[in-house]
Amino acid sequence: MIDTTTPVATVVPSHGALAPLGLDEFRIDGGLWAQRQAVNGSATIAHVGDRLESEGWLPNFDLAAGGRLPEGRRGREFADSEVYKYLEALAWEIGRTGSEALERTFRAAVARVGAAQEADGYLDTAFGRPGQGERWSALEWGHELYCLGHLMQAAVARARTRPEADDGLLQIATRAADLVVREFGPDARNGVCGHPEIELGLVELGRVTGDQRYVDQAALFVERRGHGTLGEIEFGREYFQDAVPVRETEVLHGHAVRANYLAAAAVDVAVEREDAELLAALRRQWDRTIARRTYITGGQGAHHQDEAFGADWELPSDRAYSETCAGVASVMFAWRLLLATGEARYADLIERTLFNVVATAVADDGRAFFYSNPLHQRVEGAPADPGATVGRASTSLRAPWFSVSCCPTNIARTIATLGAYAATRSEDGVQLHQYAAGRLTCTLASGARVALTVSADYPTSGEVRVRIDEGGEFELALRVPAWAHEATLDGEPAGPGYARIRRRWRPGDEVVLSLPVAPRVVRPDPRIDAVRGCVAVERGPEVLALESIDLGAPVDGAALVPGSLRAEGDAVFADFAVLDDARGDADADPWPYAETAEHSVIVRSARLVPYRTWGNRGPATMRVWLPLGEAPDSN
Amino acid sequence: MIDTTTPVATVVPSHGALAPLGLDEFRIDGGLWAQRQAVNGSATIAHVGDRLESEGWLPNFDLAAGGRLPEGRRGREFADSEVYKYLEALAWEIGRTGSEALERTFRAAVARVGAAQEADGYLDTAFGRPGQGERWSALEWGHELYCLGHLMQAAVARARTRPEADDGLLQIATRAADLVVREFGPDARNGVCGHPEIELGLVELGRVTGDQRYVDQAALFVERRGHGTLGEIEFGREYFQDAVPVRETEVLHGHAVRANYLAAAAVDVAVEREDAELLAALRRQWDRTIARRTYITGGQGAHHQDEAFGADWELPSDRAYSETCAGVASVMFAWRLLLATGEARYADLIERTLFNVVATAVADDGRAFFYSNPLHQRVEGAPADPGATVGRASTSLRAPWFSVSCCPTNIARTIATLGAYAATRSEDGVQLHQYAAGRLTCTLASGARVALTVSADYPTSGEVRVRIDEGGEFELALRVPAWAHEATLDGEPAGPGYARIRRRWRPGDEVVLSLPVAPRVVRPDPRIDAVRGCVAVERGPEVLALESIDLGAPVDGAALVPGSLRAEGDAVFADFAVLDDARGDADADPWPYAETAEHSVIVRSARLVPYRTWGNRGPATMRVWLPLGEAPDSN
Repeated sequence: MIDTTTPVATVVPSHGALAPLGLDEFRIDGGLWAQRQAVNGSATIAHVGDRLESEGWLPNFDLAAGGRLPEGRRGREFADSEVYKYLEALAWEIGRTGSEALERTFRAAVARVGAAQEADGYLDTAFGRPGQGERWSALEWGHELYCLGHLMQAAVARARTRPEADDGLLQIATRAADLVVREFGPDARNGVCGHPEIELGLVELGRVTGDQRYVDQAALFVERRGHGTLGEIEFGREYFQDAVPVRETEVLHGHAVRANYLAAAAVDVAVEREDAELLAALRRQWDRTIARRTYITGGQGAHHQDEAFGADWELPSDRAYSETCAGVASVMFAWRLLLATGEARYADLIERTLFNVVATAVADDGRAFFYSNPLHQRVEGAPADPGATVGRASTSLRAPWFSVSCCPTNIARTIATLGAYAATRSEDGVQLHQYAAGRLTCTLASGARVALTVSADYPTSGEVRVRIDEGGEFELALRVPAWAHEATLDGEPAGPGYARIRRRWRPGDEVVLSLPVAPRVVRPDPRIDAVRGCVAVERGPEVLALESIDLGAPVDGAALVPGSLRAEGDAVFADFAVLDDARGDADADPWPYAETAEHSVIVRSARLVPYRTWGNRGPATMRVWLPLGEAPDSN
Repeated sequence: MIDTTTPVATVVPSHGALAPLGLDEFRIDGGLWAQRQAVNGSATIAHVGDRLESEGWLPNFDLAAGGRLPEGRRGREFADSEVYKYLEALAWEIGRTGSEALERTFRAAVARVGAAQEADGYLDTAFGRPGQGERWSALEWGHELYCLGHLMQAAVARARTRPEADDGLLQIATRAADLVVREFGPDARNGVCGHPEIELGLVELGRVTGDQRYVDQAALFVERRGHGTLGEIEFGREYFQDAVPVRETEVLHGHAVRANYLAAAAVDVAVEREDAELLAALRRQWDRTIARRTYITGGQGAHHQDEAFGADWELPSDRAYSETCAGVASVMFAWRLLLATGEARYADLIERTLFNVVATAVADDGRAFFYSNPLHQRVEGAPADPGATVGRASTSLRAPWFSVSCCPTNIARTIATLGAYAATRSEDGVQLHQYAAGRLTCTLASGARVALTVSADYPTSGEVRVRIDEGGEFELALRVPAWAHEATLDGEPAGPGYARIRRRWRPGDEVVLSLPVAPRVVRPDPRIDAVRGCVAVERGPEVLALESIDLGAPVDGAALVPGSLRAEGDAVFADFAVLDDARGDADADPWPYAETAEHSVIVRSARLVPYRTWGNRGPATMRVWLPLGEAPDSN
């Protein structure tokens, strides 16, 4: 039985408009996300564990414990963090499924990590020993605090899912957190980490342990940033959000993962300290980021070079970086704002990002990943060997591992906790934010019990049925996404935003939400130069894409024939005018900028597929944004 | 008096369709390029020399000579090369002007370089000493051979301009070249340099000295590449052209400077060894590169991350890298193809690149430079302090120096030799490729003397007058650029390509070429996604740009009103529909992708300026490609 005030959830603010449900309070039991959670538990987590062994990133801890570092240490300076994200994924998955096999794996890994911790709480395999850099000597790029933040998040996951366990992970994390407070407290070293993350770990550890010092330390880290606290780097201090103080920032900028982790933590700090000014600043930053620096997929980050947001409206499709981890981080930021405010647009973005970034980034078999998620693939990517380790800039298809392999572990922990994003409770009601078949059971602060079953084949179908399993009086709120223009709830127009029904429910009562999932054509803001003259097609929460496999031709030079879009069942088709390549290549004057130009085209019909499925059928070129061709002759 | 077979030129092939003229055979004496050459000689070269001292890159040689390395060495591993490009610029400038002051500067610098050379000919301040990497141990990134290639080019410049001089630079270079042949010859180490350049130096040194071993070594380096000769690097072997053999390559790829230097050298090798297959391969590569991977400015290289060409049609305006050095290198490649084939399109590209990349990259005062040359500036760049050293990715305005400072020295040597690109000779004629006021005097193989004067205020005016100063029979060929659709020669339709007049000329004869310089609207190939729905405006050889200073508003969200383009004298104006920002920012639903959208606009008139002048009036946003708005209401 769950205490209603401390759910088994990833984020548990002390207050806010909405309260999270525990993983055991909403269980997904059907559809895409259930299937993804099953694959995550049976394949992805084990795959990650295997690679952490074979890459030497977990064995680094054995070397540390045995006093054998630095010789033999493998991986980048932040390799420890992947082990911690793996522990976090394991902890949530064990909590979700009760797997005894994963529990044994988890305990063995925690023991190896714990053995490497030093007497004063310090824990990092890359620093502090003869032949390594000194502790805290390289805050810009060293990632020590970043790694400890992930350690804390893992410990929080364990403490929430197995509060009685004696594995010691929470103690390892609190010893490390105590060290951080001593070393970086208000009267100690005026430093922050080059990669925000410790702030997230500290706040949540404070929430789990009740130790306010951790929350205060997180707040201190948030406030220190933006004053040139870190040194100059090649990409400028904007890269790690040290150019402008958080509460003076107008829009997310610099490295997209760093920016979102920091913003998410700053929401936590604002909530815990009831800092309305800080929360308002973060909401403004989110607004402008979503309006000007976010891809239609929800992806963020336009630059490969520094993995950064570009300028406003700088959103190239082909060079979209849209890092998987930035998608995960954006969901984390939006989720905290949703809990704080209860506003539907945050849940809208979470839905968009889960379906079009998170779901895209992992292969159906759970053992290969996209690091970046471009919206236009000009050159067919090569299949990656199952044993491969590729660079982050690789143009391969989904790959099993990366030299910087933050994304697979981030996927593993996010998929394990997907249920957490589906629903929340308020004083006297529950809110359904994401639609998946599943069962919700919880007790409200009012004392009312809620038990209901969601039936949905979403997003294939837009019909969502909610059946009440236990009677009682409460408000049921269902999110009507902003894209669902003619939604109905029990036949009445509904939304956008939350459609709310408050009544005394009887067992067997049912409400039906109908979200229109006919394909929609959407146009970009005219300031987004990269996709001028193009449209995208969406169906429900999914962005669709054109693959060369379906077109039978390269997607470059294909233009959508206006009016040709059509649904056949849940499949979407359209006609395309395709440049006649033979003629194009034989062009006598190859200079591509001309006062007049004629191009001969042929028309082909092709299916559009969900973007998240692209590349699943082998090498292909692909595009989300479709140039709008000319209307066909009427004769 | 100049021997007609060995002109004082940068490139002197042993044969080819056209032969270069010496710097003394065509002298620019008026207009833009004369002014740029004057500034280069009086300001840029001295500025470069000052910075090479203050940055420590020239003093590195003193440390080497004094046995005091590696402590105190400053700059990147390729810093030596900037000293050599500086020497090359000095040598050409001394040859062009006879400056005694520069001669003293040159001799002093050569002495310092020579003192650092080791007994066996090795010369590099970054390798080979205790505490440094071993010689040739880091071919991927070490740049030793690259630096020596620039040393050889400097020595060639000196040998051509002052063959009698006793400064010893040619001996320094040949000792180094002999070492390279010993170390990397056919039976020695199977290596190439991570950055092509040595090949260019070796061929030209072979041409100067008559030592065929150098040409053969260059050919060996060219042929070795593309077989995985170098190790794997993060960006893949494509980055340094080691993924595909040169003669199997279809299009320039990877790092844009590396690709062009290699291709230019490969033309030299093909010409010297009469390798028609190799030459044909390079011409095909050039064709596809120009058709699919070149900006309208002539700029090349779409990626910041790896300074590389992108895929076909991947030509973003805002993230255009278009490195200054890639423009210089592209001119070098095209120039060699022009000499080999005599085809006008190579001269067309040289003109475009000189006016829109090379001229853009240097400030009017000759003391500040663009490293990259984007076609769209979204955020105003900050002015760079005169003492600043900025990163290559900097978004500042033209800056005085860079941490990687290849561009200023490349500009210096290129501007000093601009006259070389203006004209050539054939067996019995001369060809004018670039139009600048100046005087041409030379002797043809037929024995005919040619002396003529070009009068032009080009490109302000498109009228070019050629007056014959000495009588004789020869063919005069004048290039009609591909953009000049209604050109006339003495009133008769001419071009595109070379308009040729063969006659027995009398002193005082004059021909008049009229190139139409009314502004032209050009459209991009539909496969260049980044500029779909946009047009560019050109005037003569110049690409024009819209700056926010002229628009009185940010250029993002400005659309050209069709039909509004107009010339007023040599100025060009147009009307623009500008998004009404106040309304845009207050948008209630900020998500920028919508099924319907309305935007309120206001219309403003603005001047378009030559792209090469942008940023000269202070911080501004700028764009070359102008979204095409809707036609105004007719009522």
